[in-house]
Amino acid sequence: MAKKIGVLLSGCGVFDGAEIHEAVLTLLFLDRAGASVVCMAPDMDQLHVINHLTQKEMDEKRNVLVESARIARGEIQDVASIGTDDIDALIIPGGFGAAKNLSDFAVNGPDATVHPDVARLLSEMADRAKPIGAVCIAPATLVCALGKKSPQVTIGNDMGTAAAIETMGGAHTVCSVDDICVDEKNRIITTPAYMLGPGIKDVAMGIEKLVDKVLSLC
Amino acid sequence: MAKKIGVLLSGCGVFDGAEIHEAVLTLLFLDRAGASVVCMAPDMDQLHVINHLTQKEMDEKRNVLVESARIARGEIQDVASIGTDDIDALIIPGGFGAAKNLSDFAVNGPDATVHPDVARLLSEMADRAKPIGAVCIAPATLVCALGKKSPQVTIGNDMGTAAAIETMGGAHTVCSVDDICVDEKNRIITTPAYMLGPGIKDVAMGIEKLVDKVLSLC
Repeated sequence: MAKKIGVLLSGCGVFDGAEIHEAVLTLLFLDRAGASVVCMAPDMDQLHVINHLTQKEMDEKRNVLVESARIARGEIQDVASIGTDDIDALIIPGGFGAAKNLSDFAVNGPDATVHPDVARLLSEMADRAKPIGAVCIAPATLVCALGKKSPQVTIGNDMGTAAAIETMGGAHTVCSVDDICVDEKNRIITTPAYMLGPGIKDVAMGIEKLVDKVLSLC
Repeated sequence: MAKKIGVLLSGCGVFDGAEIHEAVLTLLFLDRAGASVVCMAPDMDQLHVINHLTQKEMDEKRNVLVESARIARGEIQDVASIGTDDIDALIIPGGFGAAKNLSDFAVNGPDATVHPDVARLLSEMADRAKPIGAVCIAPATLVCALGKKSPQVTIGNDMGTAAAIETMGGAHTVCSVDDICVDEKNRIITTPAYMLGPGIKDVAMGIEKLVDKVLSLC
């Protein structure tokens, strides 16, 4: 039986949604490893719609689930409908959407709250000791949800974000883009990806290691 | 000196723009091969905006260049500003955008016309014998622009699309998803990708070969 791995998306585009390269690389490495993928996203308005050419806010509304469906080629479910029986592990790609839509960390820092359906799923996954991978800035949202378990994570080497993570109960480890941070106790795997860059081939190295480690822990 | 490879995008999403997986895989394999990437797209309204969850048309307008910038993380130029001195080769990922925005092949079949800036760049690339790669349905638009040169291409095995390609002056070759069709005379490389699927790892095999062949011809 193929392992069923959830991929939690947060829109479609680095500045207001899921980082597209990180999401697609996650799907690539999961498919290569023979895993079955369950894409999901919350059914909610995005916090912002950002013009990715100018980086200015646009005067329109977009829905996180509908835009995430672009990355998933239509094969996606509302995260509210997903339980821990549906997946063996969960991976959260980065992008500002992970800190603007899945939580409000980008706005409220260590005082952030996590989207209720996302918080529920993360909490249930942790309670059942199912592995969770988080990429780029997504570990901040993960710590926001699971800070009581003192998760050890990386977001690269940004000291401001690392301090916020520690305020929320996490422990931060500096990590290079081609590597992963492994919290064996909590079964949490993280990699800096575009928090460090510099390019897609570098980001791919860390994400491939993350996917392999998540699968090995299932 | 790194080779400079243009990547011509047509929006962001399989049903109304560039196919996201194909575009990101193209960027990945170019970066791994040490190429320098020049992303570009036409500055125009998309023909359609499609809700990728329901596949229904949405009552809104989106700009091809602005949406393509999501895939390019903001590093993208108007194709109108790109000349053959700027790039050593050009690759066009697929998705319906390649046949709805770069041309109107999806609507008009063999009577299609190509966006003028795209037609100008393709014609100039061919005249200078610079390699062109086209993925998925993009070869239909390529043949629409360069039919007078009798290009040999593949879009997989769809006989209706193949017939339209031959009507426009092309020659169609059946090809599997993990392989490429090489027109040595015209220096045109094509691969079926999601015209055949079934998954991202399969599509990746053909795109990696396409990228390597395009680079070898530069």
